[in-house]
Amino acid sequence: MTTLALEQHRPLDAIVLGRAGVDLYAREANMGMADISGFNKFVGGSAANIAVAISRLGAKTGFIGCVAEDTFGDYVCRYLSGQGINLDGMMKDASGSRTSVAFTEMKPSDCNVLIYRNKASDLTLKPEQVDPDYIASAKMLVVTGTALSESPSREATLIAMEHARRSNTAVVLDVDYRPYSWRTDVDASIYYGIAAGLSDVLIGNREEFDMMETVLAPGNKDDDATATRFLRGHTQVVVIKAGELGSKVYCRDGHRFRQGIFPVEVKKPFGSGDSFAGALIWTLANGGELEDGVRFGSAAAAINVSGDSCTEAMPTREQLFAFIETRKQDR
Amino acid sequence: MTTLALEQHRPLDAIVLGRAGVDLYAREANMGMADISGFNKFVGGSAANIAVAISRLGAKTGFIGCVAEDTFGDYVCRYLSGQGINLDGMMKDASGSRTSVAFTEMKPSDCNVLIYRNKASDLTLKPEQVDPDYIASAKMLVVTGTALSESPSREATLIAMEHARRSNTAVVLDVDYRPYSWRTDVDASIYYGIAAGLSDVLIGNREEFDMMETVLAPGNKDDDATATRFLRGHTQVVVIKAGELGSKVYCRDGHRFRQGIFPVEVKKPFGSGDSFAGALIWTLANGGELEDGVRFGSAAAAINVSGDSCTEAMPTREQLFAFIETRKQDR
Amino acid sequence: MTTLALEQHRPLDAIVLGRAGVDLYAREANMGMADISGFNKFVGGSAANIAVAISRLGAKTGFIGCVAEDTFGDYVCRYLSGQGINLDGMMKDASGSRTSVAFTEMKPSDCNVLIYRNKASDLTLKPEQVDPDYIASAKMLVVTGTALSESPSREATLIAMEHARRSNTAVVLDVDYRPYSWRTDVDASIYYGIAAGLSDVLIGNREEFDMMETVLAPGNKDDDATATRFLRGHTQVVVIKAGELGSKVYCRDGHRFRQGIFPVEVKKPFGSGDSFAGALIWTLANGGELEDGVRFGSAAAAINVSGDSCTEAMPTREQLFAFIETRKQDR
Amino acid sequence: MTTLALEQHRPLDAIVLGRAGVDLYAREANMGMADISGFNKFVGGSAANIAVAISRLGAKTGFIGCVAEDTFGDYVCRYLSGQGINLDGMMKDASGSRTSVAFTEMKPSDCNVLIYRNKASDLTLKPEQVDPDYIASAKMLVVTGTALSESPSREATLIAMEHARRSNTAVVLDVDYRPYSWRTDVDASIYYGIAAGLSDVLIGNREEFDMMETVLAPGNKDDDATATRFLRGHTQVVVIKAGELGSKVYCRDGHRFRQGIFPVEVKKPFGSGDSFAGALIWTLANGGELEDGVRFGSAAAAINVSGDSCTEAMPTREQLFAFIETRKQDR
Repeated sequence: MTTLALEQHRPLDAIVLGRAGVDLYAREANMGMADISGFNKFVGGSAANIAVAISRLGAKTGFIGCVAEDTFGDYVCRYLSGQGINLDGMMKDASGSRTSVAFTEMKPSDCNVLIYRNKASDLTLKPEQVDPDYIASAKMLVVTGTALSESPSREATLIAMEHARRSNTAVVLDVDYRPYSWRTDVDASIYYGIAAGLSDVLIGNREEFDMMETVLAPGNKDDDATATRFLRGHTQVVVIKAGELGSKVYCRDGHRFRQGIFPVEVKKPFGSGDSFAGALIWTLANGGELEDGVRFGSAAAAINVSGDSCTEAMPTREQLFAFIETRKQDR
Repeated sequence: MTTLALEQHRPLDAIVLGRAGVDLYAREANMGMADISGFNKFVGGSAANIAVAISRLGAKTGFIGCVAEDTFGDYVCRYLSGQGINLDGMMKDASGSRTSVAFTEMKPSDCNVLIYRNKASDLTLKPEQVDPDYIASAKMLVVTGTALSESPSREATLIAMEHARRSNTAVVLDVDYRPYSWRTDVDASIYYGIAAGLSDVLIGNREEFDMMETVLAPGNKDDDATATRFLRGHTQVVVIKAGELGSKVYCRDGHRFRQGIFPVEVKKPFGSGDSFAGALIWTLANGGELEDGVRFGSAAAAINVSGDSCTEAMPTREQLFAFIETRKQDR
Repeated sequence: MTTLALEQHRPLDAIVLGRAGVDLYAREANMGMADISGFNKFVGGSAANIAVAISRLGAKTGFIGCVAEDTFGDYVCRYLSGQGINLDGMMKDASGSRTSVAFTEMKPSDCNVLIYRNKASDLTLKPEQVDPDYIASAKMLVVTGTALSESPSREATLIAMEHARRSNTAVVLDVDYRPYSWRTDVDASIYYGIAAGLSDVLIGNREEFDMMETVLAPGNKDDDATATRFLRGHTQVVVIKAGELGSKVYCRDGHRFRQGIFPVEVKKPFGSGDSFAGALIWTLANGGELEDGVRFGSAAAAINVSGDSCTEAMPTREQLFAFIETRKQDR
Repeated sequence: MTTLALEQHRPLDAIVLGRAGVDLYAREANMGMADISGFNKFVGGSAANIAVAISRLGAKTGFIGCVAEDTFGDYVCRYLSGQGINLDGMMKDASGSRTSVAFTEMKPSDCNVLIYRNKASDLTLKPEQVDPDYIASAKMLVVTGTALSESPSREATLIAMEHARRSNTAVVLDVDYRPYSWRTDVDASIYYGIAAGLSDVLIGNREEFDMMETVLAPGNKDDDATATRFLRGHTQVVVIKAGELGSKVYCRDGHRFRQGIFPVEVKKPFGSGDSFAGALIWTLANGGELEDGVRFGSAAAAINVSGDSCTEAMPTREQLFAFIETRKQDR
């Protein structure tokens, strides 16, 4: 298997579900939080990043999430809309929650990030706000795992995946695990396990699969064994990312391959996962082959981490192809 | 299929997971809560009721749950222990939770019940308190659905079911739905759906299956369609109870049958479901046939509702057989 | 000063503010919680107890509080109404709170009491539910300190005391301190300090005054120093109770006296404080002298602890006088 | 009375209690939140603003509060320390709270401000963290009312005021009322009422006094009546601010006066209250006359609102006097 069977005649290529928020990046690079003079403002959040990545590459993209009913919520919506993203699934909450904000130093490593997510708006999304018809209007549903970390967003996410299964919308789960959002790894592994069983494509790094194996196979570090374990139920593809070592990809039919990274000068240690997922999903949504998707993903990740922000550094189709042309791929 | 394939050489026949609490029954029958002079004290809670039912019939029974670290908790544990139930899985909570208490009028119908479950001890059970080896020591794990209604008990229940699957312990889910414990039917249907997918045997009444179909098939009242929907994944048997109309039983292999009730004079409108489940599980644990299990369940239910309490009115094997001998079965 | 200056021409003698709930007393005396067969049902809660005590003695009594909108709430209201108590200030809460319930062993000492007060209805009383005109219709407002332990009941209690001050309704504070209701003694001392400053009469035992002096005079055990400290602001009378040693009473004008107890066979170690307060308040409301009030209080306490319940064992005027006649008072 | 009697031989002139956080000001003026490119970073929060104002003018200043144990907390502490402020009373919280952040547009009016205060660190301050000896080391304690809005900060504030009373440290209450922090105006009025009774100097605007009179005198708009009502207990001075109309000042001894504003071009509509309070407190701490204090306060407010931030725009003594020299005061 190298392509994903999708319902081709749907108005949207992919709907991304999860967090959209504000990213505030230190104005000065290589300087600590106390010393910088201020922040540059961007839209961020992994689901928003992935949605922008997909849309920039040219796919018709939708969004399911929630922001606060305030000027930051307006900003996020206006930006995503401007990126061509359909927001029919975006809710606004006026109950006192706040749009998630991340304050970030700009350093290639040891980069301090402060997350403001107490009563975060994205986690107020309710199952009754998720429209099955909207999900049925897309070829793919992309779920970012942070949406599972708290009720009622957890239930909204699970019901969205159920709706996707019933309407034959393919499901991609980007694990996106943030330990601080969970009581214990055991709790996280329970809900990630349920969500993985509802997914066609599962994307995570080794540490994220460690968490998902907390109960099933504590201590396991063998990617092959992990892939075998998760290639069950609906899951057809497992992607295990290993940072500078590239990615391993396992398919239900036994096919497997590796993909190296495109080495670049890293300006910030984040954004790579979201751009990787975006380019992979864009490829699959267009009927492209998995191998191409993963290669495009690696290239998009390289482009992103050498840029100054997440959303703004997502490449267009032209930029992506130009980059690949001019670079020799590692490994 | 008429028997359940079980790991026969295990020390325990069944472990019941869920609520054990105190039942306080009005001393005077057919009198309102304000007028009664006091209450008689019993151990109750659906999981405790089922455990006592199974144990009374002669099966080796275990328990997973939590009571408060106080004199009511002691009372519950002493009683269950005295009924021959193994309590290796029973926790005690000292964080300010309280053992669940139900105050009940004694009337055949329109029976007012007051439930004290704010910060209930049983719902404080944590996934890390559930021992996989304990679950692997039993042929069957019986889950009562109320345990799904709140975190962390919800996660403890899901992990217990996972442990059961991995150790080949058969899982019975008694739906036991209490709307007041849930934010919405949609929320309930999500977790019941997950739990149903992890169960070998699924027992509920029509209203409970309605809740489970809130999203999947809103408005459906067709038992056959319901059974077809839930006879998927691991589920081999679906039992749909209809009160005075008896039960319909559906098997994975297409086999199906009905079982009527044993008419008796009803003293109280509760306890029947738990005694039904208890006798059915006892039968299956002993390698008995499903048809016998459902018939014994109906008889045990009839015996129970004509008695003065729940736990104390659970029949022994001898009482059960004597009752069946002397009664003509309805329908 | 030996009488309290009161607005004499008011329809109510005293309004009591605080907890009314259900007391469940072990049916068998001198037996542990696990072994008793059930409970006898009574109305209880310190504010309810004091209100019944006052009303039984013949004073016109009102109540400010909250019970659940359910059959226990109905029971409490019907009982208090039947005792001649005006319930214009009694609210019913339907938000999921529960009427407070206390389960009690019947032993003269080491008596286990289980309190069910998670989300207790009495603590849901809101400041906007307290009617200043109702308070202005009474000579005295009696506050039991437990009402201060949580918001919004805390704010309701403080506003009630403010209303009382502004309408010249005399305020009695019965400290009624339950450590389990508070985060720390320091927190408790802050709110009790504020409430004491708004009170004309302050009643507590040595341990309760210790708590109130947590910050002001940690470690102090000198009753005279304590009384001096609290005879400030509006406070005219301080009563320090010492169990079997009787009470010490201090007045603003320097007058002070002691009152011994009436020795009786104790059936249960509670109810004495509430009956003491009730008889004292009844005396003051009728223009009686403080010395008589404290003596009547001691007699009422003795009568109560030798009875089988709290509310039901509150003496009438005739019973009180008869008891005093026939007993020699201890000193 | 025109000066405040203070304990002159103390190491600190004033300790300010309340919120210190991060202010993020829109980089571009007169532009909406969605359109600006980023934010300039400052330390803010009314208590921090007042502390900086006092310290800039040359007084020895301390602080009681709490920030998060993270890089924003470090930043706030380092800045305040650098302003010469003693931080012996500053706590760091590591329980998941976050330092308060305010995002602000830069407009003279209709200025949108987004407050991130869900689980704010300053409101986690506990009464047991307030050191009476620290308070006794200062001439004055300045309380900003927001600290009263939630437990445990509410209790910490009340105990600090009690400690101040007992150590003869004069108390200034700057009302600083934020309706969104409170359940109702009635709740707010209760705690502000208690705090006002513990204060020597009370500073607020008409709307804030309206809130404080919610129960006592609903609808009153008469400043004279208000002042009379609050010049009780310990309170010696009441300052009622009326924006462009200046301030009215009332003293316990009947003395009263008005003070106009210094007209300037307003760059932002905040900071004026904190700089006013700072200059007034500095004057009183140095034994200056009330009239001078209020005049200096008005001048400091004018200087502040014409600057680009709050803390950074607080004048030094030299700047203050220079400004007054060159300006004709409005009346």
